[in-house]
Formats: sequence, structure tokens, C-alpha cells
Amino acid sequence: MVGGGQGAFIGAVHRTAAAIDGEIDLVCGAFSSTAERSKASGELLMIDPARCYGDYKEMIKKESKRKDKMDIVSIVTPNHMHFAPAKMALEHGFHVICDKPVTFTLAEAKKLKEVIQSTGLTFALTHNYTGYPMVKQARALVRSGAIGKIRKVVVEYPQGWLAFLEEKKGYKQAEWRTDPKRSGIAGAIGDIGTHAENLAEYITGLKITSLCADVSTFVDGRLLDDDASVLLRFDNGAKGILYCSQIANGEENALRIRVYGELGGLDWRQEEPNTLVHKSQTFHRIYRPNVGELDPLAQANIRLPNGHPEGYLEAFANIYRNFARTVRKRMNGEEPSEIELDFPSIDEGIRGMLFIESVIQSGKSKSKWVDFKEA
Amino acid sequence: MVGGGQGAFIGAVHRTAAAIDGEIDLVCGAFSSTAERSKASGELLMIDPARCYGDYKEMIKKESKRKDKMDIVSIVTPNHMHFAPAKMALEHGFHVICDKPVTFTLAEAKKLKEVIQSTGLTFALTHNYTGYPMVKQARALVRSGAIGKIRKVVVEYPQGWLAFLEEKKGYKQAEWRTDPKRSGIAGAIGDIGTHAENLAEYITGLKITSLCADVSTFVDGRLLDDDASVLLRFDNGAKGILYCSQIANGEENALRIRVYGELGGLDWRQEEPNTLVHKSQTFHRIYRPNVGELDPLAQANIRLPNGHPEGYLEAFANIYRNFARTVRKRMNGEEPSEIELDFPSIDEGIRGMLFIESVIQSGKSKSKWVDFKEA
Amino acid sequence: MVGGGQGAFIGAVHRTAAAIDGEIDLVCGAFSSTAERSKASGELLMIDPARCYGDYKEMIKKESKRKDKMDIVSIVTPNHMHFAPAKMALEHGFHVICDKPVTFTLAEAKKLKEVIQSTGLTFALTHNYTGYPMVKQARALVRSGAIGKIRKVVVEYPQGWLAFLEEKKGYKQAEWRTDPKRSGIAGAIGDIGTHAENLAEYITGLKITSLCADVSTFVDGRLLDDDASVLLRFDNGAKGILYCSQIANGEENALRIRVYGELGGLDWRQEEPNTLVHKSQTFHRIYRPNVGELDPLAQANIRLPNGHPEGYLEAFANIYRNFARTVRKRMNGEEPSEIELDFPSIDEGIRGMLFIESVIQSGKSKSKWVDFKEA
Amino acid sequence: MVGGGQGAFIGAVHRTAAAIDGEIDLVCGAFSSTAERSKASGELLMIDPARCYGDYKEMIKKESKRKDKMDIVSIVTPNHMHFAPAKMALEHGFHVICDKPVTFTLAEAKKLKEVIQSTGLTFALTHNYTGYPMVKQARALVRSGAIGKIRKVVVEYPQGWLAFLEEKKGYKQAEWRTDPKRSGIAGAIGDIGTHAENLAEYITGLKITSLCADVSTFVDGRLLDDDASVLLRFDNGAKGILYCSQIANGEENALRIRVYGELGGLDWRQEEPNTLVHKSQTFHRIYRPNVGELDPLAQANIRLPNGHPEGYLEAFANIYRNFARTVRKRMNGEEPSEIELDFPSIDEGIRGMLFIESVIQSGKSKSKWVDFKEA
Repeated sequence: MVGGGQGAFIGAVHRTAAAIDGEIDLVCGAFSSTAERSKASGELLMIDPARCYGDYKEMIKKESKRKDKMDIVSIVTPNHMHFAPAKMALEHGFHVICDKPVTFTLAEAKKLKEVIQSTGLTFALTHNYTGYPMVKQARALVRSGAIGKIRKVVVEYPQGWLAFLEEKKGYKQAEWRTDPKRSGIAGAIGDIGTHAENLAEYITGLKITSLCADVSTFVDGRLLDDDASVLLRFDNGAKGILYCSQIANGEENALRIRVYGELGGLDWRQEEPNTLVHKSQTFHRIYRPNVGELDPLAQANIRLPNGHPEGYLEAFANIYRNFARTVRKRMNGEEPSEIELDFPSIDEGIRGMLFIESVIQSGKSKSKWVDFKEA
Repeated sequence: MVGGGQGAFIGAVHRTAAAIDGEIDLVCGAFSSTAERSKASGELLMIDPARCYGDYKEMIKKESKRKDKMDIVSIVTPNHMHFAPAKMALEHGFHVICDKPVTFTLAEAKKLKEVIQSTGLTFALTHNYTGYPMVKQARALVRSGAIGKIRKVVVEYPQGWLAFLEEKKGYKQAEWRTDPKRSGIAGAIGDIGTHAENLAEYITGLKITSLCADVSTFVDGRLLDDDASVLLRFDNGAKGILYCSQIANGEENALRIRVYGELGGLDWRQEEPNTLVHKSQTFHRIYRPNVGELDPLAQANIRLPNGHPEGYLEAFANIYRNFARTVRKRMNGEEPSEIELDFPSIDEGIRGMLFIESVIQSGKSKSKWVDFKEA
Repeated sequence: MVGGGQGAFIGAVHRTAAAIDGEIDLVCGAFSSTAERSKASGELLMIDPARCYGDYKEMIKKESKRKDKMDIVSIVTPNHMHFAPAKMALEHGFHVICDKPVTFTLAEAKKLKEVIQSTGLTFALTHNYTGYPMVKQARALVRSGAIGKIRKVVVEYPQGWLAFLEEKKGYKQAEWRTDPKRSGIAGAIGDIGTHAENLAEYITGLKITSLCADVSTFVDGRLLDDDASVLLRFDNGAKGILYCSQIANGEENALRIRVYGELGGLDWRQEEPNTLVHKSQTFHRIYRPNVGELDPLAQANIRLPNGHPEGYLEAFANIYRNFARTVRKRMNGEEPSEIELDFPSIDEGIRGMLFIESVIQSGKSKSKWVDFKEA
Repeated sequence: MVGGGQGAFIGAVHRTAAAIDGEIDLVCGAFSSTAERSKASGELLMIDPARCYGDYKEMIKKESKRKDKMDIVSIVTPNHMHFAPAKMALEHGFHVICDKPVTFTLAEAKKLKEVIQSTGLTFALTHNYTGYPMVKQARALVRSGAIGKIRKVVVEYPQGWLAFLEEKKGYKQAEWRTDPKRSGIAGAIGDIGTHAENLAEYITGLKITSLCADVSTFVDGRLLDDDASVLLRFDNGAKGILYCSQIANGEENALRIRVYGELGGLDWRQEEPNTLVHKSQTFHRIYRPNVGELDPLAQANIRLPNGHPEGYLEAFANIYRNFARTVRKRMNGEEPSEIELDFPSIDEGIRGMLFIESVIQSGKSKSKWVDFKEA
């Protein structure tokens, strides 16, 4: 693990996600920026002190030489620290799983894709919300034609935790996310907008082709955006709205997507993730884990009987598990199944970086539509 | 009553709304376009056949001469038939309550305002969704500063009933709403978009100053828009999203508004109208009719003890009741109270027409922002 | 109308319910216990002062002699004042609609049935909750076999408005309901328990055959029960729970019923009355007014398009409308349809009185089961 | 671990719960009834084959002699196999965590308590539903007096998965739970009724003193109860209803508790576990993890920021974590904190066995009330 020292939120999430299914062991880490603090973090995690390293370079170098070396590197640092460790890990033969957005810039993301392709190793990007089984069921329903040709997509991701200037109050999670040097050109758009974009493309199977954004920084003194409203157009002619905000005061983590097709609509909300609503003019139906027959892709990502709620960590764990099984199969020279391959990778990472750059560009533009593709 | 013959939906709604509080009696009508059909409709309504007229002109002329003449004219015809009867009624001394959008064009709306001003009579516009007590409570909370300065408004109005070409299946409600000759330049935008616009301005007390719209007609063969996504900017610097659709397949009548301020947020949904959510970073509270103290403006529009759901007709009746009480006070030379005056009028009608024209214009424009004001 | 003077809650509800569909006119009343106060109430209701009577006897006698006499008597007084006016009205040839519970004692209810039978007139009892269209849909689903043979019924009716000693604070609604002289032997059990009992028998088509009750008075100084928990057994072998409370602090009017059969279950809640959930091991489906095909019995009791919420008053109005249409048909010598006959009558009233007596008896008994039938 | 071989549901749950926080390692097991199958299960779990034992006796004996021996024994077998391994583990110096109900009979439970007391070791019982943070918040609100003296408790636990004769279809989970030789004298009452009883006593701090039960077996051919409705009385004079069913067709795992006090009420539902409703006559408030200040007991059991749903496994993990921390403190000679000690133990186990015996006894009794205590 690179990053995830004491006080880090997402590092703990990654560790739990990896642990849930008992298929991945945490064996070493460069948890913090000094060897000492890294060891302190490692001690709490009951990691062999000899394998708590001062930085990712040391970790990758030394682990490479061990007989019982790690198989996978998990990167949970802020955005500006994704590319270099990912590249080096891959170049030393380690598979990589990395937090999103994939890199600091689009250019880095494209270089990373080249490294992945040239090494032939496996890369996963933790767009964890696509790990929810009901998200997978939604995707399957779309694929099956249950709602017909898609006309309209509404994906929203309001949060309220940055309604005040948290980054000046010593709140670490706020600090780096609002710091252009660590987060990149975007704040909320990169942190949560990319999740919304990824979710929309994952469920619909469509690609955004152009967009029109109103990008805002509402909190005085903030350096990056904290709210964006975006009109979308998709490659099949569908239209959409994407809305992300970190100043939607009172909202928790209210990612939601609605997809309307010629025959019906779907509605999924992250805060009640085990419910998927499928509506048409003639019926309202609710899909729930282990109630009736679900798509195999959804079914494979459920652990518990119906009514036993699985949540955020289990969805995150699904990304880890599918990735780990793919890695294991490939290490054994086997072909992973479609179910095992169901995790986001570098292509989704590049889409995310394109999204960030397009939205920021559109926010500054006086013309209505900006293409969602490289200039 | 002008319009509202057999088979009309909104006419029956107006009649029920007027009847609920027992303060208004239906005494005459020009219910249909021929005297015969008007009488047939009137008979079902137990109206004196002598007061069932062949058209509004006859009604207004003949009623003017009766000693027991009507006090109020209610206009429930399609949009193209609002202006002329409203004008004539006012000019003959009758107060007018009219369905929305107020007229066929913005120009008509402005002329109507002049007539209202010159006659000094009372005019009401049935933006009925502002009649809900929890909408009034939301407005009061905003006014009281409970959520602080408003930053973001999200108002959405998805319906699914026009997901297919209903207007070719003999469905009257669909026919006139999708007919440019009767509906005007807009379809969904006029029919439901204006409700959303009115609701947003009513609750927030803000005015939209510019907008950027993506206007669509998804159903082949349809003559007017059936979906629009609109970015909004408000006069206090707030931003917003307005979304109306009649092809959101599976949605019923899902008007919803969320308002986020510096201190908290509000969330109200028309399909569960007796619940208003007030959230902040530190609490989630739910307002309900007759649970705790509400604003007097909200309280005055509640009829039943808590847990006895009031719905669409009661909210509509609130518009009628407040209008009727204002008329009665004015007829008696008294000054109506703020509570009695709480109904939409011609100014809201003009805003609605401006909204329609701005959105349609923006939909055709390549520039991002269109001013929400007269050219 | 008998009763329903100023300050009365249920009188206003009856009037609105009668007015909603424009098929019933309020023409006279004995609204209060003195002629003066009755006239004052009548004036507010715009009733001819000559037809505002000092008591029901005067009303029935004088109206009997009018050419334009009333057709229907609506009785909205407290329980001890149901029987005498109902009997006299029937004996003078008037149809009667009466609030519940039908009488003060079971003996009165049985006598009233004799009067109804001997006069051949129509009698309705306003168990208004069976007026909701989704309740009718639930009944239809049971009848159709959709959930199979019923095994378990859970009906609950918690309110919290009597959590304190409201009857000593000058709250009229609380005063008579907790007064044995006006309410009878039961408080909550009669006021709301009978609604729950009626709803359960209406939806399931089953009859309760025995019960086991724990009856409580939680508020010091109260004279009647304010809470009861009851185990039920039904005539088909099904079992159940009925729970009514007026000290369930924080609850509004939370009537809810769940019915589980061999094949599936139904769930309906009065506070969101337009949603009926139908669940089985393999699907969760939601019925809503005008979404898909409903049973004709449900459909006939819906006024508005989907998503336009109808509430308590509209359900109440359904009882009035069906009753009025039945009366009209019978006055015209026609046979009312099953849809028109769908309102509670004296048999439901007798069941309710039996319920009250059985629960009170069981509450005092040391044996487990008390028969739900006359001793 | 004793039990939890391939195909077992609850064994996997225990393992995940133990793994989530990275504070417990699974090191050995007697997963199945033969050494061979135990090794097969252990291999899948990446356990050293030398530590996969043929039965619990071998495991306890051999582990006792290892230097790196296990610290804790987790017992996840059917009910008839709880007592013997628990007793032996304790007598060999191992702390024990055991699934519920604690033993096969009340007598065993009392003997187990003696063993625990004489060894001075730590014992935990996985009444996992008390692990939810919002359950702990409910308990804290009761303790703080927020709802006043408790008057009424309604706890229900409907499931529908045994609506058919699953035990004859080769469904292992159904087989042992409906088998008197493995489950004991009760079916649903022991499997889920004890959870409901435990939850009610945990949140309210009250003790049930007597009860009146209607116990049913609805499915033909079933050997144990599959439904029970129980009236409750508590030691402070409060009354209650407990309802558990496994034939409530369409229900998933719908454990819910409502507690009404003199000042307000609480409502918590397991299927949406991150929401706790606190209602009174004057407000409706919702508690959510990390929204505003929570009780320290609740706060300590939350891992994620608000809006990131934690579910069943996390609540289960809270039991494991608190138990493990208590064990660690005690192994280090330290005193565990109130937060660390917050897990169910043998006393709750004895209450559960008493509940089973009382309910079964009441179900057969003709008298109304059965004492909830040993005869």
C-alpha cells in the first residue's frame, strides 16, 4: 500500500475492502512520507516493521527482491501521487489498484495506459460505486433492453461537507482535495463528479460526447470548484444532466442516477444502495439483492441473504475482489471471466480525466457546448 | 366557468378546488364550444340550464345583466383561450381566476396586466403547487434565514405520460398540450416547466436572471418540446438547475425542489407533499402539517389534524380559497391579509411567459447564457 | 346534518367529503344543541337560517313536511348521540350516513339494524379508511388469490395526540372521546381500534373469531383506555395482531395493515395512501393510482391522474359518493352496482361494536381467548 | 473457529466480521465434522492445514499446546453444538465468542455462566443487531431521558424465507433451523425472536416480566414454530408487542423497533439501519451516522463519513471488535472501557433462553400471562 497512514480516510477503506473477502493480505506499505511515521502506521496494522517503508520507491525496490514479495500495489495517496508509484510498480512487475481520479492530468493518464499495455499487467481504478450489486443490475437491465433506447440520464452527486471553509480548520480530507497542487485543476468535479460520470457511462453503456457546464466556487477563500451543473449529450442521442456539489448543505453522500428509456426508467440511490427502482407507465417494480432472479453480474457481487444490508465497504470490496481474482487467474495463466473482469480500469480513468478537463474548459467558455474528447 | 366541459381534466379540478371549502358556488358556465354541449355538461353539474352558455362572450354579457350575477370567472380552457375571456371578464367587472400559463404569448400577458391594473379587479393564476402548506413552510424558512443565503436551487419536474405519441391516440389531454395552435411555442416547458420556475421563485424569493437550456423533442412526430434541462442563475448569485420532462418514463408527477443555503438545505416533493425535509451538517429535521409550530402562512392552509394527508385538490383549493377571500374582502371594502393575498397573480404569469420565451430561445441559441428578461 | 357545529372537527370533514364531488348539497342542519348556536354555525356555512334547527327532532319533523326536503341525514355527533337521530331519521323516511362507531352500545346497533331493515332505507357508516383506492386494490388482490390463502394479518393504528391529559386542557376533540358518557365503554379502542378492525376485515374478507387483548390507560387521570394490543384469530385459521394507541408519542395517524398469504404479502399505510406494496419471495411491486391496470373497484374511486396525490378527504368523499349514488339509484328504483354499494353499513357497525365489547372484556379477563361474538 | 465450513452462511459472516477491522486473524478451525472436510474448508480460507482440525476437541487440545496458540474461539455451529465447545474452550483458557441462541437449553446456558465466572474469561454472544450505531444511539437517547418514561414497545421481526417447506428442498439453512434436534424447542422464536427480545431490552434498558404468546406453525410438515405474536409486560409498567415470523411472505429481514415514552418515540429499522427517527408531538428528527453529535457509544461504532452506508457486516464487526478489544485489554491486565464492553454476553444469552422457554410455554397455555422468569 502506498499512502493510507494514520488519519487517512480512504486508506482505511481500501484496507477493509481488501480484507472483507479474505482473499488479499496486507503485507507491506509506504504509508507515510517518512520511514518513521510509516512504521508507526504499520505497527497499528500489525505489519512486519521490516516491510514498512519510507517511500514507495524503497518499497517497490526492496519488495522486488523478496521471495515472498507482494503481488499487488494499492495506491491511496492524493491525486498528484498516483502516477509515479503506479508507473514504477507496473515497471517492476506488480499489478496496481489505484484510487480515483487516476492521475493528476490527462496526459499522465494516457502515459499510464501505455505502461499498462506494455507490461501486460492488471490495473484497477476504484470507482467503487460501480461495485454495488444494484448498480450492476441496472446495467444489466439496460443491456437487456428492459427500458428501451435511452433518452435521458440524470446523475447527481450532492454532498454538503464543504459548505464551510473546512480546509482552513485543519481537516485533512478537505485540505488536499481543495489544493490545486495535490488535487489538480478540479475540486468537486474530480473528487465526486468523476464518480457520477463513471456511473452514468457504466450503467447506460453510452459515452458522453459533449457537455455544457456551470462551474462554481461558492465558499470564499476556496481555491477549486465546489459545485458544478453540467448538461450532457450522449453518443446515441440521449441527453442528460450531471450535478455534483460539495456545498449542498445537509446532503451526505447522495449520489443518485435516473435513466429514462423509451420503455421505462431506472432509479438508484447510493444512500439506500440495496434498492433499485424500475418504473414504467404500467408498473413500479423494486429490485433488491436476493429477491427474485438477478443478472449473474449483480448476483456474483452479493454476499448476504436478502434484507441483510450490504453497504459502501462491501461495494468497494467487490472492486478489490474482482480485481484480485482477475490477477490470480492471470498469474495462473488462466482467463478471467466477465464477472471477474467487472472492475474499472485505465480506460475509465482516462474518461474521468477527460471529464475533468472538459468540464473545467466548459465552465470558462462562452459557447454552449464543449466536446467531450481530446482537443 | 369558461371551459371544463365533459372529459376535461383541469375543469373538474378547478370545480372541486372551489367546492372544498364551501365558500364558492358554481352558478354558470360556458363549458364547451357549443350551447348544446355546454348545457349537457352543465346538467351533469346541476347548473341552471339558463346559465349554461354557448361561449364566454354570451356568458359575460348575460351574467352582467343579472342581479344575482356571478362574482368570479374561472378560466380553464387551453392556453390560446385564456386572454380574451380574461380581458372581457375583467372589463365587465368580474374578478378572474385562470389556469396557467397565463396566456398564449408574453405580449398578451403584459396586456392583461394593464387590464387588471386599470380595472382594479383581482386576478389569480392557478400555480397550484404553491398552495401546499409545506411549500409555504419552505418559503417561510427561507425568509427566516434558517438556511442562510441561498447558493443552489435544484427544481425538477419529471413526468412520463408523454413517453409515447399519445396525441395521436385520441387522448385529449395530450392533444392540445402538444398542439402549437393551442399550447403556444412550448410543450412541457409551458405545461410543467412554468410550475417549476414559479415554485423556485416562490420558495426562494429570488428571481432567475439568466439561463442556458437544452430543449428536446424525443418522441417522433411530436410538434413541441417534451423535455428540457436548464441551467439557472439567480439575482443573488445563486445557481440552479431546472429540469422538466414528459418523457421521463415511469415518473408520475414528480415535481421536487431542493434549496441549499449557506446554513442548510430544504427538500420538498410533490408526490409526498406533507413532508418537508430541513437538513444541515448537524441535523435532519422533518416538518409535517400540525407537527410543532409552523409559520402562520403554512398553518392557515391546513385543514386536517396531523397524519390525515391533504393532497393535490386541497392545495389547489388553497389558491381558490385565498383568492375568494381576497375578492370578498375587497368587495366589502376591506383590506385582505397577507395570508389571504397568498396566491399567484399576473406578475407570476408574466414571469412564466418570460420563462417560456427565454427557454425556447436558449434552446435554439449557440451562446451559453440567455437573459431572463424581455429583449 | 346532525352535529358539526363550530369547532367540531369531523363535521367539517363530512361536509367537505360531501361537497368534493358536487353530488350532495348541504341544505339544513341541527348543528349545535341550541337553535341560536345552530343558526350561527349555519350562517357560516351559508345555510338558509330557516333550516338551521335547534335539535335533530325539530329538523326531522320540519324537514319531513317540506316539499324540497332533504334526502339524507348525516350524523356527526359523539357516539352517544348516534342512535336516536339515526332511528328517527330512518323512521321519517330519510337515508342516513353516520360517523363511527355506529352507536353507544352493541344493543343499540342491533336495534338500528332492525330499523334499517324494516324501513328499507340506505345506511352508511363512515369507516372512511376503506374509501382509499389502494385499500380497495388490496382487497381486490386478496380476492383474486394474488397472495394465496391468508396466514397472518398485522394491523396497527398508533397515534400520539393523547400522550398527555389533553382532555383537561379544554381540547374538545379529547374531551368527548375520553368521556364514558359520550364515548361509551372504550376510548382508543372505539375511536381508532374499530377502524383497524374494519380495515382488516374489509381487505382480507375474513372475520375475527376470537381475540386476546391487553388494554391500558397510560395517562393518569384518563377515564378510558388509550392503548390496546390485541392478538387475533380469523375464521380461516389465520392469526393476527391489532394494535391501537393514542399515546404512541410522535405518531400522527399511522394506520397500517400488512397481510401475508401463502404466496405473498401486502402492505398499506394511511399516511402515504397512494402506495400499495405487494411483495413475494421473488418480486417487490408497487401499486399506485393510475399506474397500470387496477381493479375496477379501486379505479372507480380515483379522481386524478397518477402522481397527483389524493388524501384523507377524497377517501372520505368516496364513502359519501358511493352512498349518494346508491341512494339516488334506489330513489329512482334502480339497482346500484357493486361499485356504488361499496361503503360500510350497519353490519360493519355491529362488528365494530362487538369488537369494542370483546376487547374490553378480554382486557379484564384472565383467560387467554375471548370469543368475538355475542355472549 | 468451530463450524463454518463450506456452505455455511453464518460462519462466513463471522469471519468477515472478524476481518473487517484487521484486529483479529483466523488462524485455525474445526470447520466441519470430519478432518478431511475441515481441511478442505480451511484451504479455501488459506489456513495452515496443520491447524485445520477434525473436531473442536482436537482443536482445543492441540492449540492449547502451541506457543502461538489462538486467543479466541468462535463458535458458529447450530444451537445443539454451542455448549460443549464453549465450555471446553473456556476450561482450556480460551475466550469465546458464540452465535445465538447461546445454548440448546436454558439449563446449559446457566451452566455456561458458571464456567465463565469460574474461569474469569470473556464471553460474547453475537446478537449482532445491537452492533448498529443507530441502535446504540437509540439506547443512549432512552438513557438520557429524551423520550421520558417508556410506556410502549413494539418490536417486530418478520421474514418470509420459510413461507414454503424449504427444509425439504435441500436448503441447509432451513434444515437445521427447523430440526428440533439441532435447533431446540423453538424455530423462529429462537432464531429471530431472541434477537427481537434482546434488541428491546438493550435499547430500553427494561426487562420483560411476563408475556402472552400465540405460537404457530403455518407450513404443513414443519416441526417447529414459524411465527409467534407475543404481548409483553416490562418491569417499569410498560407494555409491548413482539412479533416474529418466518412466513411473512415478501418480507426480507425486517427487524424493527419502536419505543414510545411519555415525551416522544423512537423508530429504527434494520433494513435501513443508518436512520433513527425520533419523533414527538412537536418535532420529527432523524439521526444518522456522523450527522451532528451522537452519543459516544454510537460514535465509537461508526467507521465511515456520513452517507457512506454501513450495513449488517459492519454491525456484526462491531460486536467482534468490542469483544476483541476487551479481550486484549484483559490479556494486558487493563480495564476495558464502557465502549469496549458494549457487546452481549452470557446474561443476554440466559435472557434469550428464558424467552424461548416462556414463549413456548405460553403458546401452550390457556392462561393469559406467563412469567418471564424461571419456574
